[in-house]
Amino acid sequence: MAGEPYLDYPKHEIKKFLGDKPVKALFIPYAAVTFSFDDYEAKVEQRFAEIGHHVRGIHHYDDPVKAVEEAEAIVVGGGNTWQLVRMLHDNNLMKPIAKRVANGMPYIGWSAGSNVACPTLRTTNDMPIIDPLGFDCLKLIPFQINPHYQDKNPDGHAGETREQRIEEFLEVNPDIYVVGLREGTMLKYDDDKLSLIGNLKARIFKKDQKPLELSSEDNFNFLLKE
Amino acid sequence: MAGEPYLDYPKHEIKKFLGDKPVKALFIPYAAVTFSFDDYEAKVEQRFAEIGHHVRGIHHYDDPVKAVEEAEAIVVGGGNTWQLVRMLHDNNLMKPIAKRVANGMPYIGWSAGSNVACPTLRTTNDMPIIDPLGFDCLKLIPFQINPHYQDKNPDGHAGETREQRIEEFLEVNPDIYVVGLREGTMLKYDDDKLSLIGNLKARIFKKDQKPLELSSEDNFNFLLKE
Repeated sequence: MAGEPYLDYPKHEIKKFLGDKPVKALFIPYAAVTFSFDDYEAKVEQRFAEIGHHVRGIHHYDDPVKAVEEAEAIVVGGGNTWQLVRMLHDNNLMKPIAKRVANGMPYIGWSAGSNVACPTLRTTNDMPIIDPLGFDCLKLIPFQINPHYQDKNPDGHAGETREQRIEEFLEVNPDIYVVGLREGTMLKYDDDKLSLIGNLKARIFKKDQKPLELSSEDNFNFLLKE
Repeated sequence: MAGEPYLDYPKHEIKKFLGDKPVKALFIPYAAVTFSFDDYEAKVEQRFAEIGHHVRGIHHYDDPVKAVEEAEAIVVGGGNTWQLVRMLHDNNLMKPIAKRVANGMPYIGWSAGSNVACPTLRTTNDMPIIDPLGFDCLKLIPFQINPHYQDKNPDGHAGETREQRIEEFLEVNPDIYVVGLREGTMLKYDDDKLSLIGNLKARIFKKDQKPLELSSEDNFNFLLKE
């Protein structure tokens, strides 16, 4: 959330999601490019400690696959989606994470960490600084998220708006929903229910359909049908 | 240029670049995703006709490689860089275009069409709607261009600024310059001289160097050394 301390607003929702019993989550800091994994871990640990939980970076483990297999929960931070996907591929982590989540392990991701929960990285906003060696991601959900969704371009910008970019995506990928998540909103899937948290609405796109504007009062479960 | 008719401002520079003798340039409309190649061709032809030149879309030719080999000039329009690169790969056009340009054929590109003049598409702003099957591009120049360069994020946007994204690129690609081209500016290489056209400065990035702000008065030839 612009103008607020990092990860401060979502921490209350993270606390509700993880529950009262202290959890030590496995933190995946791979999206960090211009700062160290240790620094990223420390920043996130600070916020988690405030809600009675903890994280430990996957970079401390000799066997990252085993770390996933034994994790209580997985937390994937934002940064550059391309590097994140490349490192998840390089470390053979896509399938192990997807398997654990399918069996009920809590997954929390923001920004790039929400992009990789999707079938592919095709709705990231990030600069493709490295070839990810495949666009496929975790597919924890069957639809795509576009995080940091913006309605307008900055003044004087003559490039495509975000909506135009998503329309291009739909032209090439007509069978899939895209959810534009505005700042300060999040999607939660728990107890078989998918819902929105936050004051702004989500904008939902599908080919040949007028975009929907849905709020935290609405049921988002239709997005889960493939 | 925001607020002006499409391609209007650059047409005067295109006229100077192509010269007085009428040229019928080969137009590559592959970056168009949500509108037809014919419509794109018509839009660009209108502007070219105003300056005494013409374009013909490569999609009219049965043999696109031969069309490149016989072209007087090549014009590559903006849109989605990922689809553009994918179609250039699918039609085996990268090498033929690069070869013709190395031998002196004029090349004009804007937005996605400037991205593909670079070694790779790694500094595009576009949404990766399709796997390009390889990040390599034409490499007409040894540096990267970031078109539509913006200094600030829109209000309320909590994602990375453009400069932060480019810093991520440099972290992974430390040996290459990135030129942030602000709206209404262009790079021209002619008579062995690379220069900037337009009222705004270009912002030039390299790993571990303070970004440079250079104007149309400056010589940009240092960017051509590999």
